[in-house]
Amino acid sequence: MLQFADRMNLLQGSEIRELLKLTSRPDIISFAGGMPAPELFPVEAMKEAAIKVLDEQGRAALQYASTEGNPALRQKIADRMKEKNGITTTADHIIVTSGSQQGLDFSARVFLNKGDVVLMESPSYLGAINAFKACEPTFIEVPTDNDGMIMEELEKILATTDNVKMIYVIPDFQNPTGRTWPLERRQKFMELINQFKIPVIEDNPYGELRFENENMPSLKSLDTKDLVIFLGTFSKILAPGYRLGWVCASEEILGKYNFIKQGADLQSSTIAQLEVNTYLDMYPLDNHVKKIKDVYIKRRDCMLNAMDEYFPKDHVSWTHPDGGLFTWVILPEYMDAKVLASQCLEKKVAYVPGGSFFPNGGHENTFRMNYSCMPEDKIREGVQRIAEVIKANLK
Amino acid sequence: MLQFADRMNLLQGSEIRELLKLTSRPDIISFAGGMPAPELFPVEAMKEAAIKVLDEQGRAALQYASTEGNPALRQKIADRMKEKNGITTTADHIIVTSGSQQGLDFSARVFLNKGDVVLMESPSYLGAINAFKACEPTFIEVPTDNDGMIMEELEKILATTDNVKMIYVIPDFQNPTGRTWPLERRQKFMELINQFKIPVIEDNPYGELRFENENMPSLKSLDTKDLVIFLGTFSKILAPGYRLGWVCASEEILGKYNFIKQGADLQSSTIAQLEVNTYLDMYPLDNHVKKIKDVYIKRRDCMLNAMDEYFPKDHVSWTHPDGGLFTWVILPEYMDAKVLASQCLEKKVAYVPGGSFFPNGGHENTFRMNYSCMPEDKIREGVQRIAEVIKANLK
Repeated sequence: MLQFADRMNLLQGSEIRELLKLTSRPDIISFAGGMPAPELFPVEAMKEAAIKVLDEQGRAALQYASTEGNPALRQKIADRMKEKNGITTTADHIIVTSGSQQGLDFSARVFLNKGDVVLMESPSYLGAINAFKACEPTFIEVPTDNDGMIMEELEKILATTDNVKMIYVIPDFQNPTGRTWPLERRQKFMELINQFKIPVIEDNPYGELRFENENMPSLKSLDTKDLVIFLGTFSKILAPGYRLGWVCASEEILGKYNFIKQGADLQSSTIAQLEVNTYLDMYPLDNHVKKIKDVYIKRRDCMLNAMDEYFPKDHVSWTHPDGGLFTWVILPEYMDAKVLASQCLEKKVAYVPGGSFFPNGGHENTFRMNYSCMPEDKIREGVQRIAEVIKANLK
Repeated sequence: MLQFADRMNLLQGSEIRELLKLTSRPDIISFAGGMPAPELFPVEAMKEAAIKVLDEQGRAALQYASTEGNPALRQKIADRMKEKNGITTTADHIIVTSGSQQGLDFSARVFLNKGDVVLMESPSYLGAINAFKACEPTFIEVPTDNDGMIMEELEKILATTDNVKMIYVIPDFQNPTGRTWPLERRQKFMELINQFKIPVIEDNPYGELRFENENMPSLKSLDTKDLVIFLGTFSKILAPGYRLGWVCASEEILGKYNFIKQGADLQSSTIAQLEVNTYLDMYPLDNHVKKIKDVYIKRRDCMLNAMDEYFPKDHVSWTHPDGGLFTWVILPEYMDAKVLASQCLEKKVAYVPGGSFFPNGGHENTFRMNYSCMPEDKIREGVQRIAEVIKANLK
């Protein structure tokens, strides 16, 4: 018998991954993934960018490059963060990562010893939970309501818990709930953080996908003490296939991330960075973001309208996201969304049961619905099928 | 003051990285890196592959894909491992990683708890040392001679050391020494491994770059008990800019690597995998490998001849690699290769001081020379300048 490291005991095969394999079958209406709509990818523009890169700097594109990432791309990221997130920063405060998933993994490695406490919204992104588990922390879930993390609850936990080393939050269109924190919560959050001096991972993959109402300032833009580490990504605003994200933080903190990256994969793909940088030189990314938002808003409306029409409203509630990719459904407590998921799969429709989004388990009467990746007729049809399954399980 | 995880105390700024930044200046003759010759990259062929991928499967190329990697590429890797490394395997035993550096990082995370013992050749690849350090192991260096790891020494260590959880080796054209293990050592090594049942990381980035003499069987090809994890990469035989490598191991072990990869970066770049897979469909990789070997062999000969001509042979020795990218120089014990490196930089020539290749330090009278990345006239000139510095430091 081979001996593996202790951390491997925590990382077990995920039902979700098995589910996602099933749901890639073309006959399934899947609300399970969190993928962008592939029919909107700027394939021709990316081809032009690829040709230009290989024509003009082919040797450099195929060679090793620096760990922190391409300087021109980092500058563009810094400029975009100023414009979109109100964060005044420079290329020196950015490193390019292999998707923001890598930023999550690095965050745990930079801040967490075994047994240290990490705070997260309850529920939170399951990919973050899994990434953090590799460092064997203790998870404490901070209660949430429809406006995100509840600050009184956070304050109580901070005041009574030793060894909190990191707080992980998704204040904009959260995965899995689609919820967004209002301004007062953000301000109160930063007050608490400044008081307790805890590093914060602000994960912002969906911030640019706002369909209505005003942008909220990012936590990083309110950060006066260099406590916030901001994670961004091109996956949802351009394409995930390049695996390009970024970390924005103070130089001291970013230096630590850079050491971890050096050992983890030396650098992210040189050619991917040059192609995305060249695309950004050739085309305004805002136009592409507008294009996908126009489609996603219709799909969200379609899903929410269908839920309104078909779901048994006296028994089931769900969130109304102002942006992003997800809505979150709460079933009666006596229902198990995993059991219903099997019944849904028989009707060829899929969602992700919610239990996996709670690091300490429970809440099996919840599930996540993604609306970005299916056309409207399938969204209506899929919601209707799920509604039938829910109704058949009502007591 | 922010608190970082304990592992960050071990990961400090590397002098080497600072050195490598300096040596990227075009006026420096650099033997410091370990990069392939960029003028040999198949830029036009990769452009054709990129266009074909974006024309024929653009949406899939820009979308998320599976954690283990593209099935067609994994099949090609399995086929190539059979042909080149004598390893009978299938796509199910391969996962694609972001360079083989990622395989090193994952290996440590799969096998090492804090304080566990990892054995390595003395010296060994500094990128592996740094990757492993993030798991806070104890390093034990196994003594080597011109034929690589000394099996009697390995046996002694295994017989007297508790808690050995992993052995890391580079049996072919090792980084930094260029040494290759003969067949008998490989056989003896596998006997010992089978007896003590320790997982082995066989890192093989340079195996296909053999200039002369017969190929040695890989350890994995001699592995009857699923104890060897083989790491391969496209970085040295095609191009490092895609960041594509692979891990080949038993299904049980590979499952663990897959869990770690899921949390670490979800997957390696979809488009990079499809482009490399398409290139391999369009062109025989062997032709490209032959082309680079033809150049590297001349550069190796040029470097060894120049050392033979200029270096003070009564005081300095070096290795004669049968392949790969490096030769290793041993100075008189009273010299410090770091001090000489500064003097060399003044003469606009660079190498990597050897101390960093020893996980437990010492051996400052050694350095590594790379010959793959400089034209022959610069190799002669650079060796001559280094020889002058060495001679000026002789007692």
